[in-house]
Amino acid sequence: MGSTAFDGELEQVLRVGSGFRLADVDPGSTPAYSGGKADGEALLDEQDAVLAEHQERLYAAGRDGEAPSVLLILQAMDTAGKGGIVSHVVGGVDVQGVRLKAFKAPTPEEKAHDFLWRVERELPEPGMLGVFDRSHYEDVLIHRVHGWADPAEIERRYHAIRDFEERLVAGGTELVKVMLHISKDEQKDRLLARLDDPVKRWKYNPGDVDERLHWDAYMDAYQRVFEETSTAAAPWHVVPANRKWYARIAVQELLIGALKRIGPDWPTPAYDVEHERARVAAS
Amino acid sequence: MGSTAFDGELEQVLRVGSGFRLADVDPGSTPAYSGGKADGEALLDEQDAVLAEHQERLYAAGRDGEAPSVLLILQAMDTAGKGGIVSHVVGGVDVQGVRLKAFKAPTPEEKAHDFLWRVERELPEPGMLGVFDRSHYEDVLIHRVHGWADPAEIERRYHAIRDFEERLVAGGTELVKVMLHISKDEQKDRLLARLDDPVKRWKYNPGDVDERLHWDAYMDAYQRVFEETSTAAAPWHVVPANRKWYARIAVQELLIGALKRIGPDWPTPAYDVEHERARVAAS
Repeated sequence: MGSTAFDGELEQVLRVGSGFRLADVDPGSTPAYSGGKADGEALLDEQDAVLAEHQERLYAAGRDGEAPSVLLILQAMDTAGKGGIVSHVVGGVDVQGVRLKAFKAPTPEEKAHDFLWRVERELPEPGMLGVFDRSHYEDVLIHRVHGWADPAEIERRYHAIRDFEERLVAGGTELVKVMLHISKDEQKDRLLARLDDPVKRWKYNPGDVDERLHWDAYMDAYQRVFEETSTAAAPWHVVPANRKWYARIAVQELLIGALKRIGPDWPTPAYDVEHERARVAAS
Repeated sequence: MGSTAFDGELEQVLRVGSGFRLADVDPGSTPAYSGGKADGEALLDEQDAVLAEHQERLYAAGRDGEAPSVLLILQAMDTAGKGGIVSHVVGGVDVQGVRLKAFKAPTPEEKAHDFLWRVERELPEPGMLGVFDRSHYEDVLIHRVHGWADPAEIERRYHAIRDFEERLVAGGTELVKVMLHISKDEQKDRLLARLDDPVKRWKYNPGDVDERLHWDAYMDAYQRVFEETSTAAAPWHVVPANRKWYARIAVQELLIGALKRIGPDWPTPAYDVEHERARVAAS
C-alpha cells in the first residue's frame, strides 16, 4: 500500500483541553503523524472508502428517521483550507448523505432573529453528515474583533452556544468542531498565490486583507472561544493546516472516529423479506 | 483513452418534442451511443473532469451574485437510478457548488401552502448546480395516479408549472429535466436484488411495490406530463435507463451541454490586482 497510518489517537492529540494555548500550536506541524506528503496523500485516498462506508451506514440508519447525525463545524482564517476539506474529504462520501451549509454575512431576515436561529434551520437530519463552512462561531469571532457586539453580549453568546451544543449532542448529533490553524506568513503566501493565478483570482476577496490586519485580535478571539466552548460533550480540535495534506487526513480521521463512536450498523428491515419477495415476484 | 464519444447531438435525440410517445422508447436502448458498457464507463470517468471544470466556472461566476444557475430535475419510477445519477454524475463535481434536494412526502407545513412553495425555497442560488431528486412533478404524477387531486386541479398545476419554469428560465436558470426510463421487468429485477443483498435491504421500501402495481397509470401520467410541460424553454429528456452506465453518461452529457450553453468564463476580478498584491505584501 505504501500509506502510513496515524501513530496513535489523533482525536486526543488535537483536542482542546484545559490549559490549551493556541499560541503554542505550530501550524506547520503534523501531530500524531510521522509520514510525509506522499504518505499522507496515499492515506487520504485509502481512507476515502472507509469514511464513505461509515457514512453510508449512517445514511441507511437514517431511513427510519431515528438515527444519529454528525455535524462537522469548520472555522478558520481565510485561505486556511476549509473549502479544500469540503472538496477533498467530504467530497469523498456520497453527496446524498451530506448537508453542507456555507454561512455568509447574515441577511436582514437572519439579523432580525437571535444568532442561533439561522443555524437551527441548517442542522443535519437524522442519518446525515452536516458540514458548516463557518458557523455560529462567527458571532463570537468577527463580532468580537470588530466590536459589533459588546462584551456582555459576547459572554451571553458563549453561554448560549454551550447550551445549544449540549442540546444537540443530547439529541443524537455527534459534533466535530475543527479550527484549521495556519500561520500569518502562510496566509500571505496563499493570498499572493490567488492573485498570481488568473484561474484563482475569483477566490481572492479584498476584504480578506482587511481581516488579516486584525490577525492577533482573531487569535485572541479563538483562544477565548476555546476556553469558553471546548466542552466534554463538544470539544474543539485545532488542526495545524500549513500543510494541506495533513489537515485533510486529520479531519478525515476525526470524521471516521465520530462515525465509529456512533457506530451505526446496517439497519435490519422493518418488513418481512420473504413476504416482500413474494409480492415483488407476483407483481 | 479507449473511451467512445457520443455519435451526435444527444440533447436533440433525447428531447421530448411534439408527437413524442413514451411507449415508443426502448428502456434498454442507448440512443446516440454506439459503445458498450466498458466504453461508457471510460467515458464517464473521462468526462468527469470536463463537467467539474464547467461547474467550477459557473460557481466562480456566482461569486458576484449575478450568475446563471443550472437545475437538474430527476424523475423516475423507483429503482430507476436517480440516486446513482446523484452519486456518480453529480458526485464528480465539487460538492461546494451543488445544492441537492430530495423531495419526500410533503410535511404538514408544506401541505398548507401551494405545491410550488416548497420548491421555490430550494431553487439554486446564482452559480450553483441545483439537483432535485423528485420535484413538483410528483404533484401531477402520484397525485394523478391516486386521484389525490381532481382533474381540474391537475390541469391547473400543468399551467402553474409552465409559468413557474418559464419564469425560472427567464431569470437565468438553465433547466435540465430528465425522466429515467426503465422497463417494468427491470424494476422487478432491481427490487429483488435489493431484497437479496443484506447491505441493500435498507433501500427497499414495501411502498415501492404498491406504486409498481399502478405502472400503467404512471406511464400515462408521464405521457401527459411530457405533453403539457415539455416546452421550448424547458424541454423534457427521456433517458433509457435499463443500462445504468448509459443513463449516467447521458445525464452527464446533458449537464455538460447545459453548462456550455450558459458558457461562464472565469470572472474578471472586480479589484485591481497590482494594488491588492501590494496590500498583501505590506500586511
